[in-house]
Amino acid sequence: MDIAIIGASGFTGGDLIRLLLLHSKAEVTCATSRSEEGKPVSSVHRNLKDLTDIKFTNPDIENLDADFAFLAVPHTAAMKYAGQLKERGIKTVDLSADYRLSKDIYESTYGVEHTCYFEAPYGLPELHREVIKGADFVANPGCFPTGATLAAAPLAKLAHTIIYDSKTGVSGAGVNPSKTNQYTNVADNLTAYKWTSHRHLAEMRQEAKFLGSSAKCHFTPHLLPVNRGILTTAHILLNEPLTQEEVEKLYQDRYKNEFFVRLQNPSLGGVRGSNFCDIGVESEGTRIVAVSAIDNLVKGASGQAIQNMNIMCGFEETDGLRFGPVFP
Amino acid sequence: MDIAIIGASGFTGGDLIRLLLLHSKAEVTCATSRSEEGKPVSSVHRNLKDLTDIKFTNPDIENLDADFAFLAVPHTAAMKYAGQLKERGIKTVDLSADYRLSKDIYESTYGVEHTCYFEAPYGLPELHREVIKGADFVANPGCFPTGATLAAAPLAKLAHTIIYDSKTGVSGAGVNPSKTNQYTNVADNLTAYKWTSHRHLAEMRQEAKFLGSSAKCHFTPHLLPVNRGILTTAHILLNEPLTQEEVEKLYQDRYKNEFFVRLQNPSLGGVRGSNFCDIGVESEGTRIVAVSAIDNLVKGASGQAIQNMNIMCGFEETDGLRFGPVFP
Amino acid sequence: MDIAIIGASGFTGGDLIRLLLLHSKAEVTCATSRSEEGKPVSSVHRNLKDLTDIKFTNPDIENLDADFAFLAVPHTAAMKYAGQLKERGIKTVDLSADYRLSKDIYESTYGVEHTCYFEAPYGLPELHREVIKGADFVANPGCFPTGATLAAAPLAKLAHTIIYDSKTGVSGAGVNPSKTNQYTNVADNLTAYKWTSHRHLAEMRQEAKFLGSSAKCHFTPHLLPVNRGILTTAHILLNEPLTQEEVEKLYQDRYKNEFFVRLQNPSLGGVRGSNFCDIGVESEGTRIVAVSAIDNLVKGASGQAIQNMNIMCGFEETDGLRFGPVFP
Amino acid sequence: MDIAIIGASGFTGGDLIRLLLLHSKAEVTCATSRSEEGKPVSSVHRNLKDLTDIKFTNPDIENLDADFAFLAVPHTAAMKYAGQLKERGIKTVDLSADYRLSKDIYESTYGVEHTCYFEAPYGLPELHREVIKGADFVANPGCFPTGATLAAAPLAKLAHTIIYDSKTGVSGAGVNPSKTNQYTNVADNLTAYKWTSHRHLAEMRQEAKFLGSSAKCHFTPHLLPVNRGILTTAHILLNEPLTQEEVEKLYQDRYKNEFFVRLQNPSLGGVRGSNFCDIGVESEGTRIVAVSAIDNLVKGASGQAIQNMNIMCGFEETDGLRFGPVFP
Repeated sequence: MDIAIIGASGFTGGDLIRLLLLHSKAEVTCATSRSEEGKPVSSVHRNLKDLTDIKFTNPDIENLDADFAFLAVPHTAAMKYAGQLKERGIKTVDLSADYRLSKDIYESTYGVEHTCYFEAPYGLPELHREVIKGADFVANPGCFPTGATLAAAPLAKLAHTIIYDSKTGVSGAGVNPSKTNQYTNVADNLTAYKWTSHRHLAEMRQEAKFLGSSAKCHFTPHLLPVNRGILTTAHILLNEPLTQEEVEKLYQDRYKNEFFVRLQNPSLGGVRGSNFCDIGVESEGTRIVAVSAIDNLVKGASGQAIQNMNIMCGFEETDGLRFGPVFP
Repeated sequence: MDIAIIGASGFTGGDLIRLLLLHSKAEVTCATSRSEEGKPVSSVHRNLKDLTDIKFTNPDIENLDADFAFLAVPHTAAMKYAGQLKERGIKTVDLSADYRLSKDIYESTYGVEHTCYFEAPYGLPELHREVIKGADFVANPGCFPTGATLAAAPLAKLAHTIIYDSKTGVSGAGVNPSKTNQYTNVADNLTAYKWTSHRHLAEMRQEAKFLGSSAKCHFTPHLLPVNRGILTTAHILLNEPLTQEEVEKLYQDRYKNEFFVRLQNPSLGGVRGSNFCDIGVESEGTRIVAVSAIDNLVKGASGQAIQNMNIMCGFEETDGLRFGPVFP
Repeated sequence: MDIAIIGASGFTGGDLIRLLLLHSKAEVTCATSRSEEGKPVSSVHRNLKDLTDIKFTNPDIENLDADFAFLAVPHTAAMKYAGQLKERGIKTVDLSADYRLSKDIYESTYGVEHTCYFEAPYGLPELHREVIKGADFVANPGCFPTGATLAAAPLAKLAHTIIYDSKTGVSGAGVNPSKTNQYTNVADNLTAYKWTSHRHLAEMRQEAKFLGSSAKCHFTPHLLPVNRGILTTAHILLNEPLTQEEVEKLYQDRYKNEFFVRLQNPSLGGVRGSNFCDIGVESEGTRIVAVSAIDNLVKGASGQAIQNMNIMCGFEETDGLRFGPVFP
Repeated sequence: MDIAIIGASGFTGGDLIRLLLLHSKAEVTCATSRSEEGKPVSSVHRNLKDLTDIKFTNPDIENLDADFAFLAVPHTAAMKYAGQLKERGIKTVDLSADYRLSKDIYESTYGVEHTCYFEAPYGLPELHREVIKGADFVANPGCFPTGATLAAAPLAKLAHTIIYDSKTGVSGAGVNPSKTNQYTNVADNLTAYKWTSHRHLAEMRQEAKFLGSSAKCHFTPHLLPVNRGILTTAHILLNEPLTQEEVEKLYQDRYKNEFFVRLQNPSLGGVRGSNFCDIGVESEGTRIVAVSAIDNLVKGASGQAIQNMNIMCGFEETDGLRFGPVFP
């Protein structure tokens, strides 16, 4: 199956190519980038030298010769391609925020008008697998909401308050240099940012509601001196206390058939480079601490996008994603 | 004034010596270490070469020739020296946990019997300056409770729940090699530990109570890939909502005369090597996020101990501590 | 093909298991560890949870049921197993130093008696592929000599002096906690060690000689704050000057058929987790700077061991090793 | 004494202010920055909040009210201020490259015309203290040449070849975001850059010549994942072999009266934040390895500039610089 990646010069584009090298049925045949047009992909993603010989092209959906597309462009850019891809019948996973929320909430959260809205399944397979199966366009979740929602899901209905305290690696700040991702501002350091106003909170609330929860959700992210990974500490306040055993059973029951969710003491190093979400949980009565660890570029972006593709296309869900995290 | 440091081979001992080099009235004349006895202090604290020529000696309180002592030994070891120091009339700051809590709570928290209990002021000057002034023995607070309590203090009385989500640098794990402080387990990584059961929680609860708060306090620490520093994100749930302006005013009023508390966007880099505690606060109505940053070895240990010494001895409170953080 | 890993609880053991998960013909069925006997492999190598269900066993060569073995034990331990493995006809790659050098040089370099000496090919495929093909026991090179020798090989005959200035990640210091690999001693830091006396120098000299070089070889390693990787800067002093073009041609000619050697500006990030050795070269007349980057646990250990296995067994040389480095 | 810092918004400007806070005779009363004009210095150098209340001004040499000036602007900018400062009789240390080299070598090295050339002492006090004493304008050395020259100086006359293999922290790349100092390009990584062509080599050669050496000098820098510090490994090839004892004596003799040079096993952590240069040396016969460690922003820039000021003004040479490095 021929794959096109629209917007392939960033970190998620690079990881899509890296991961698809291991896929048994898919091959990246088109990688677009306006700024890098004509250059070999491996001149930008130098880790991939000799593993791919394709060159960046200008995005041209009309003449796109591909069976499946990944949109790895920023929000508002994705909506410019989405309609055309739909029309042409090219199945698509969109890694941007453009189709994750209802039109209203999207527009108020991102402060822009949505010029090409339609409904798309929210591509968190552990919650929405059935609707993803039949879809030809899936909205890949944000990196923070992926780890946060998986951490809290088994308890969401029982909680009155959920506080997500997340810590993210620097690759989440993108591939362009800025004060935010400058080494001297990040290394041997830690900061909180968007303490109460990060846009990913809208997705967390949407998914909590989907899970039947009426809990108040809060979210504070922090910028860590690591390259990859998001660790989310979910402080979950329950209406009624639960014992450690009861809590563990809820998590085991919910995730026992989920290959990519592993119930063990989570650490960023333990999932580095992989599509796993490791989750642990500890009860303090009415307050539960649930911690999840993901690689923000894999389970938080490109790996989950491939997982969605596999489900959409009827492939083995783990195809291309069944390899070990790199530790240390 | 001649200073003795009992237990001077660890990180806090090293930083006490480093900081006291800048003090106008104090000089370290005795540094004890059983394991390093006879060696020059600068052969262990190699950063201090040519800045001090004293040698480690065996601790011998009976013959100690010093005007002031710092106990920088582990908990349970401090109580072995404390009584003798008191008897000899040597003013002392104890950096261990042995005198921070009531006897009951100490014994249940640390699971040991206290064999030499007496009451001592809790050496957080921003809360207890007046009783420190007259004291000849002060219990220096734990690193986590220092940052956590300062972050929440202005709101403690108004809260029903306070969740401290703290992130600490590796020097907090001490100077002896272990799996916990091994580079390959920490670098490019993040983990939570003692998710609901860290012993410092007892101090946080004690101080919240002192502040007139009846809030439930919770605490989850994380181990960061940084050398120094603790960033504490206090998620404070209020009974009644407060606006951003109201919250800011509460913090300004409480800290306007505190040299070592600076109200600005906190980061570990911004306080590195210094005695400052930087605090920021943001309102989301009934949930307030207050974030504090300290250097765990300075404001979280040795610097605060010197601040206490200054108060106990009637020196300028900032003597030896009025220098800039090292950034980047 | 059933694979046994003797000494599987360390970093190289972990990476052998991780890498062999991707191999089309090999499966790890035995992993030994005296200290971890009976525990699931994934309880030690937690990154591999749900990817392998084998348990550590005690090493028992006599009853070993395997087609191929990797010795991932320290030097002097390997020689205790090597003879028995040979007798039993189990093809083996030894990752220790025990069979890399002649008996004389081994004994003088390592200061121990070799109690089970025999000759074995030096498993650097780019130099010794032909003899590896027919071998049933191969000595896998040291991590430093791999990167150093590949960096200098095309110029070795033309040089009178080669100075290898290497910088290694912390995983090279092994899996047990020590002052050397303690976070606070390594992070935000850099040190040189064994400035003139590192034992790997003996391998570098042996390989230079094999290449027909009479150059004096020197070696100084440094400990970097990174998890994985060795960057070697080879300062090569020539008898006669060479232009940039001439030098580049020598490298292109030597490595044009080597999949795992890529001629591009090397960085540790660009090879992380992979079996690639990236090499760059720049001429300053009679002084040439050649720089190589490898992942010390992969091309410097476990990946190269699998590459050797592939050659010994007639498999595709890149089987299990044809995947992209993880960047960033 | 009133101090003006021309170009005070960068890292060296920030460290000048930080360090001068500890000086007994100097006070920064003017800090210029075109881009930050009008803002409090501590709004840019947030580590200095509450330690200084001055604001950035536009540079205006004509009306400058200061007793001493530091030029902390880029090369070519410094020459625009230097003449006027001289005319006005304001003693000055220039941290740029503009007055470090002869006019010819400067112009060929930097590829620009020098529009205001005059001779100035090269401000490496350990080599040029006497001429600095009487000077009213001193050229502060580059960061790399400082560490490199101090490492090799005692052996320079005896060497035929010196290869400086240097490893620098990221603050050397300046305060503006770029691909070079982007976290994801540097962290858990290592690269060499300007392998044979770095401009600082001209200073190294000039100083070797000053020391009476006819050795060929070479230089290759590397970019390290650390904030501060330069470790230089000098591979020194001698005409005649020297024993370890002979070499050590040469270093002891040369540096026995130099407070800021400490002969001990060097590490970046051991000098962090301080003006020390730690040097170690090991003999391998005709090849000597000498390693130096400095903080690139202190001994490699701002600290050395203050050391020069102290000498020029007849102050105690260590005034403001006699404090301990921050470790860990």
